[in-house]
Amino acid sequence: MEIITDIASLRTRLERESKIGFVPTMGNLHEGHLSLVRIAQKNADCVVVSIFVNRLQFAPHEDFDRYPRTQESDCQLLEKLGVDIVFLPSERTLYPVPQTFQLLLPSVADSLEGEFRIGFFRGVATVVLKLFNIVQPHVAVFGKKDYQQLHIVRQMVAQLNLPVTILTGETVRTEHGLALSSRNSYLSEGEQREASHLFRTLLQVKHEIVRGDHNYRSLEVSAKQVLSQRGWKVDYIAVQQQTSLLPAEGGDTDLVILGAAWLNQTRLIDNLELSVDQVTSDQR
Amino acid sequence: MEIITDIASLRTRLERESKIGFVPTMGNLHEGHLSLVRIAQKNADCVVVSIFVNRLQFAPHEDFDRYPRTQESDCQLLEKLGVDIVFLPSERTLYPVPQTFQLLLPSVADSLEGEFRIGFFRGVATVVLKLFNIVQPHVAVFGKKDYQQLHIVRQMVAQLNLPVTILTGETVRTEHGLALSSRNSYLSEGEQREASHLFRTLLQVKHEIVRGDHNYRSLEVSAKQVLSQRGWKVDYIAVQQQTSLLPAEGGDTDLVILGAAWLNQTRLIDNLELSVDQVTSDQR
Repeated sequence: MEIITDIASLRTRLERESKIGFVPTMGNLHEGHLSLVRIAQKNADCVVVSIFVNRLQFAPHEDFDRYPRTQESDCQLLEKLGVDIVFLPSERTLYPVPQTFQLLLPSVADSLEGEFRIGFFRGVATVVLKLFNIVQPHVAVFGKKDYQQLHIVRQMVAQLNLPVTILTGETVRTEHGLALSSRNSYLSEGEQREASHLFRTLLQVKHEIVRGDHNYRSLEVSAKQVLSQRGWKVDYIAVQQQTSLLPAEGGDTDLVILGAAWLNQTRLIDNLELSVDQVTSDQR
Repeated sequence: MEIITDIASLRTRLERESKIGFVPTMGNLHEGHLSLVRIAQKNADCVVVSIFVNRLQFAPHEDFDRYPRTQESDCQLLEKLGVDIVFLPSERTLYPVPQTFQLLLPSVADSLEGEFRIGFFRGVATVVLKLFNIVQPHVAVFGKKDYQQLHIVRQMVAQLNLPVTILTGETVRTEHGLALSSRNSYLSEGEQREASHLFRTLLQVKHEIVRGDHNYRSLEVSAKQVLSQRGWKVDYIAVQQQTSLLPAEGGDTDLVILGAAWLNQTRLIDNLELSVDQVTSDQR
């Protein structure tokens, strides 16, 4: 496995590759990331994983400084998996001058995560665009855990005519249902046990929709109350259309239930897809 | 010469090319464009010229509808020159949905042209980014006639890490000094004669700088007065630094004098580069 830190060397190394798969990450890798790497490996001849904690997508008050950095063990995991290249740029390499060219995003980027993390998706989209231009991958893999990010990256690829195919990986969970996340490392043992209640609450909403309750706004309110009563501070619970990420209405079939909430000092997000037709005709 | 109108066909056709040169245009081609094509031919194996009048860079009150469209004669000129491919996308091809992903630009895009053409450079940068992603050229050629556009495209390429080299072509002029422009076709015969006074005024400023007058702000004011007295409506005359496009100060060496002014209903732009060291030591 090669570890490359500068753009020119990476480009030279990749010149001879005909089918490049790319997994951009912020490091602190867990089984969720590794599952994306495996998808890249199935769909490309040469797999590049980038590790870069992107300051541009953190607001000043957020956890940029304490975000877990575990480069050495990350590289060991990737080597074991058979990754070809790890791209480890410094901040100076990716942002040699202030990044005054950024992406202006559609209004969907101001909803859900974007409402609570101002500028987050602009930072994400801008660094993903830069990394795509550097790596020039044929396929790039993103996890459904960051559902809205996946939605925005896909729209960006379509609207900017980027020559890359986006593949997706399912959310990987602990046995209790907690979605794997680098931020889970902020949780105490007790908090880890409580943390799966975000998933359980989304699952409860899903069950109620399957049972035929399509009053999504009131399901959202009830779900928020459940978590609040357990001591969480809820940013949002939202039943949206999968394709537009706009609020779902009665007749919509392909839904996603998204949630974000604070467990003490740690902010967790999760989501569940469901297809109303499928599940209502299959009421187990 | 192949004329290709859709993105998928163009990508398939270009897959086998190893060194692509690209000249994006809005058509109504003149010798200025053709000189850029020749530069592309010298620096690439396969030359693509795009012709697309980009609505995104026109303000609602501007001349999008009456912008000269001369596709047939454009293609004849390009064929004679030995161009490999003309890319002629429709608006629906480039903008199948409203372009909600656009570029957010640095403040230099709000000065000079950007002050008088709100949103112009955002529209230019966004379509150039899209075209680059579609054509994936190794080199792309832009004319110095649109000096600020060239500056912004270069900065975009650097900051977004686009894998393309930008080459430049000098401004081509009539024997009277008028910079060739598609918008010259709006001019009556009498206006054509008057039009070279924009160039002559910039040249006069250049001469005064060469003679040792480095009071740029007052040179700008005098130049504006000259044109105003001839009946022009001047948007700006500005002596700027070549590298930053910020207003030049006494000690700066590499300058560019830019001007934009209305001759009746037609808006013309022009510019002249000069190096203060060079010219003052070489006072012919």
